[in-house]
Amino acid sequence: MLYLYAPQDAEQLAPLLRQALPNIDLAVWPQQVDDTAVRYAVVWNPPEGFFTRFSRLEAVFALGAGVDRLLARADLPATLPVIRLTDAGMAQQMAEYALYGVLRYQRQFDVYQRQQAERRWQPQPPRLAHEIRVSVLGLGAIGAVVATTLAGLGYTVSGWSRSPRELPGVACRHGSAALDTLLAETDVLVGVLPSTPETRGLLDRDRLVRLPHGAALINAGRGDQLDQAALLDLLDAGQLRFAQLDVFASEPLAAEHPLWVHPSVTVTPHIAAITLPGPAAQQIAANLRALRSGTAPEGLVDRRRTY
Amino acid sequence: MLYLYAPQDAEQLAPLLRQALPNIDLAVWPQQVDDTAVRYAVVWNPPEGFFTRFSRLEAVFALGAGVDRLLARADLPATLPVIRLTDAGMAQQMAEYALYGVLRYQRQFDVYQRQQAERRWQPQPPRLAHEIRVSVLGLGAIGAVVATTLAGLGYTVSGWSRSPRELPGVACRHGSAALDTLLAETDVLVGVLPSTPETRGLLDRDRLVRLPHGAALINAGRGDQLDQAALLDLLDAGQLRFAQLDVFASEPLAAEHPLWVHPSVTVTPHIAAITLPGPAAQQIAANLRALRSGTAPEGLVDRRRTY
Ligand SMILES: NC(=O)c1ccc[n+]([C@@H]2O[C@H](COP(=O)([O-])OP(=O)(O)OC[C@H]3O[C@@H](n4cnc5c(N)ncnc54)[C@H](OP(=O)(O)O)[C@@H]3O)[C@@H](O)[C@H]2O)c1
Ligand SMILES: NC(=O)c1ccc[n+]([C@@H]2O[C@H](COP(=O)([O-])OP(=O)(O)OC[C@H]3O[C@@H](n4cnc5c(N)ncnc54)[C@H](OP(=O)(O)O)[C@@H]3O)[C@@H](O)[C@H]2O)c1
Repeated sequence: MLYLYAPQDAEQLAPLLRQALPNIDLAVWPQQVDDTAVRYAVVWNPPEGFFTRFSRLEAVFALGAGVDRLLARADLPATLPVIRLTDAGMAQQMAEYALYGVLRYQRQFDVYQRQQAERRWQPQPPRLAHEIRVSVLGLGAIGAVVATTLAGLGYTVSGWSRSPRELPGVACRHGSAALDTLLAETDVLVGVLPSTPETRGLLDRDRLVRLPHGAALINAGRGDQLDQAALLDLLDAGQLRFAQLDVFASEPLAAEHPLWVHPSVTVTPHIAAITLPGPAAQQIAANLRALRSGTAPEGLVDRRRTY
Repeated sequence: MLYLYAPQDAEQLAPLLRQALPNIDLAVWPQQVDDTAVRYAVVWNPPEGFFTRFSRLEAVFALGAGVDRLLARADLPATLPVIRLTDAGMAQQMAEYALYGVLRYQRQFDVYQRQQAERRWQPQPPRLAHEIRVSVLGLGAIGAVVATTLAGLGYTVSGWSRSPRELPGVACRHGSAALDTLLAETDVLVGVLPSTPETRGLLDRDRLVRLPHGAALINAGRGDQLDQAALLDLLDAGQLRFAQLDVFASEPLAAEHPLWVHPSVTVTPHIAAITLPGPAAQQIAANLRALRSGTAPEGLVDRRRTY
């Protein structure tokens, strides 16, 4: 039996999963079931105790790309296979989100917005796409598409990952030693990293100051990677030009948080790349069939790497 | 002799033209020359009387894509060949300009901006690229690239021109009879039309109201195509969601104009696609060589069509 816990999306997801997996028994929270009959679960933020209740689970499917919250749970068995979504329609959304910020930077819509407030008609010297150095942190299922989409539009794109990667038109670097140099050569930094012990606090004050004067930051990976106070200081000092943030150290962003009102900050409520029920159901169904036929599912999380 | 009148760009352009045309004598305003020796001119907004002074001109090269102001001049001989720039690096810039507005619409950055002002964390239902119907008015050297770039990114793109066109991935329509239907099926309207007797006043109140409720307008063709008062009324009424305008009935936009301060209007100072000295000099040189060898230059303006 497959158990679906996703209160907000169940209405859309349940029929899609039933259709994609006609031979599997599907139960939907808050349905009462024989807990011991549940072999698989599809979840988004399940309640504490969920994994104690379904003690015979053989695998859990996360309804997102990031599994940091799931892996942090005390009730998740250490050996339970966790399968996350890989792309499933999220990569294009993330590329769009990043592209908006990159265009805002390159085409100086932020500058023209300030000039408009002063009713000032003042053309700025143009900057061409290839003159803008964009660095994408994270070259996984999502980051790779972000990087190649931006490269395809003519930007000078670098990428950064843990292990070596190769992507057409993207200068790929890897490992923590490469990061400082990369930052110093970056006009727009785009973060699409998972939250792991290694990435938490990555964009601290020391690293942010390595960005050239007037650089911009787009973060849509996870909020715990960024020192928000340092960012605000650098924006205030005019060292950084603007930030477009979709993820925060604490979400929802508290109403009194200074990020909401900073003139150089764009806040979006964790919408950069949303799980799409159609592609998600398809991918989960394919992965469940793979598991049952003994082949490797896509998106199996490496519990040691934690992503 | 080739005479360059472009006070703002001469410093960059003159050496590029000299390099590209080593066998042509180049004079640069305000240099004194034997006026009767001047056979060609490269111009941007030359002073009144320019064409009376250089009475032996064989062709004039415009330093832009639009020639409406040039053709409207009383001193321009009716039979003088006018050669404009075709693309020359402007098409990509225009695609970027349009893309920014389309992303703002699709990814609802305008909505999130208002929510941010209220410190409100409220994800909106996502809209995918293919769900957004973008219509590009004008499918010439610039509009064609705008339309295909947007189509390549997954938007549902239609295009409109005077004569029939074919573009990969773009539903092309032509002729004034097709416009009303097109408008009714448009979420984001992108104007990149030249100013001609037929396009002046094209986007009047009657046509703007045909756009679906909540549609957006991006205009970077010419300002005389748009009824600015009707646009403001429709924005006020909430019928249209926003406008991103680069061109205006009168430029620079007067300081007291209500467009500057309307919360749903983005004003940019005619910077959507700027003439780039490098590609411009290359294209002018190639066209001048074509003329002298008796072959047709690219971008020869049809004086009857006026574009
Ligand atoms: N804001 C949103 O709406 C939203 C939506 C979806 C996802 N996300 C976030 O985006 C993240 C990435 O998603 P994904 O599907 O692309 O994940 P993924 O396929 O696992 O890719 C992660 C990438 O990050 C790199 N990485 C991990 N740790 C690193 C380190 N210590 N140093 C350098 N690089 C490191 C990985 O390097 P290797 O290539 O060497 O493994 C990989 O390239 C998710 O984990 C989630 O946090 C946000
Ligand atoms: N804001 C800026 O920074 C900026 C920069 C550059 C250019 N522009 C503007 O953009 C305009 C277009 O440039 P371009 O190089 O693409 O020009 P173009 O190559 O001459 O193309 C003009 C397009 O408009 C169409 N068109 C003309 N009259 C029409 C009518 N009455 N009904 C329907 N379609 C009509 C043409 O149709 P056909 O294909 O049938 O000929 C053609 O597709 C310029 O004239 C200029 O005004 C603005």
